[in-house]
Amino acid sequence: MPHLDFWYEFASTYSYPAAMRIEAVAKKAGVTVAWRPFLLGPILKAQGLDNSPFEVFPLKGAYMWRDVERVCAGQGLAFRRPDPFPQSGLLAARVALTAAVARVRPAFSRRVYQAQFAEGRPIAEEATIATILSALKLDAEAVLHESRNPMVKERLRAETAEAMRLHLFGAPSFVTHGGELFWGNDRLDAALAWAVQETQTEGASPTGPTP
Amino acid sequence: MPHLDFWYEFASTYSYPAAMRIEAVAKKAGVTVAWRPFLLGPILKAQGLDNSPFEVFPLKGAYMWRDVERVCAGQGLAFRRPDPFPQSGLLAARVALTAAVARVRPAFSRRVYQAQFAEGRPIAEEATIATILSALKLDAEAVLHESRNPMVKERLRAETAEAMRLHLFGAPSFVTHGGELFWGNDRLDAALAWAVQETQTEGASPTGPTP
Repeated sequence: MPHLDFWYEFASTYSYPAAMRIEAVAKKAGVTVAWRPFLLGPILKAQGLDNSPFEVFPLKGAYMWRDVERVCAGQGLAFRRPDPFPQSGLLAARVALTAAVARVRPAFSRRVYQAQFAEGRPIAEEATIATILSALKLDAEAVLHESRNPMVKERLRAETAEAMRLHLFGAPSFVTHGGELFWGNDRLDAALAWAVQETQTEGASPTGPTP
Repeated sequence: MPHLDFWYEFASTYSYPAAMRIEAVAKKAGVTVAWRPFLLGPILKAQGLDNSPFEVFPLKGAYMWRDVERVCAGQGLAFRRPDPFPQSGLLAARVALTAAVARVRPAFSRRVYQAQFAEGRPIAEEATIATILSALKLDAEAVLHESRNPMVKERLRAETAEAMRLHLFGAPSFVTHGGELFWGNDRLDAALAWAVQETQTEGASPTGPTP
């Protein structure tokens, strides 16, 4: 079955509309999706950027706020500019990678984006994350405790290292089974089409796997 | 009638697929298009970038080459990575703004993009531009002479200043009559839809012009 890895950073504005629509469009296209949170900060730092490109380049930042507002309106999503920006996605990413959250990772992630970009809540604070966990009928205290486990911290480091190995430089990014990288909410449909085409090509190839 | 200003830089990779498809998609959407070449260099410099962002950020550059290749393939366009990159778009932009080229500016611009990105020809050289002008049945020598006129140089400076005033930071960019800015080949369809919607809103408004 066609597959896409959905790489997202919790602080990323364009990851919000992508997270809110990916399951519906992927289902329609017949593509499975793996939700893979990572940290963009270390990747930007390796390129010499000590802050969000939207802060480093104010013209691009001003455009982004207007554009995300339009994109969200087009999807019927509430949008409010978070203050401060960017927020740290570290806590949310660690929580998303706990064993307890694994089976509800998409729902958890969507609620984090909504808290941040629709409700203006501080996602770097445990209280915000605890409320989301409780709403998902999870034991907030136990999950937050697990998120501090060195194994979870190492899992996030490994995922970020894998994102680097795949040459990711922004979020959201989409990577097909064959390693094709698509960057940006705008390219989600192209990524889905590529994932579908890849499977068809594999099936048609005499050396490829039987579908 | 709905209208879009198409702002393009001759050295810009993503402006190539945009230039090749804009007239067909705009016609289908019932939107008129004004072709407005400008220089991105001075705008990038004002943001502290002394070179193409694709050169300053190599991960983004590597992605862009693969992505433009995919986008062009999707549009049935030949694509070859120019060497060197970026090329200077100064000569082509001045020629595009001469009175002699005004009425064939879209055709001239498309041929410059094809020369650069499909055929690997150096667009900063007069010989390349002369061949294109001759193919368009223009007097190449006379047009090149006009392009050196201080009035033409000033026209390009004024257009680049206008791009800055509109807060452009990349190419291609699309600006509606109402001043909405859309950046990137990916956003052409959204820009067209916005231009159409703007006219409808104006028509519906009691204070707006009668359609």
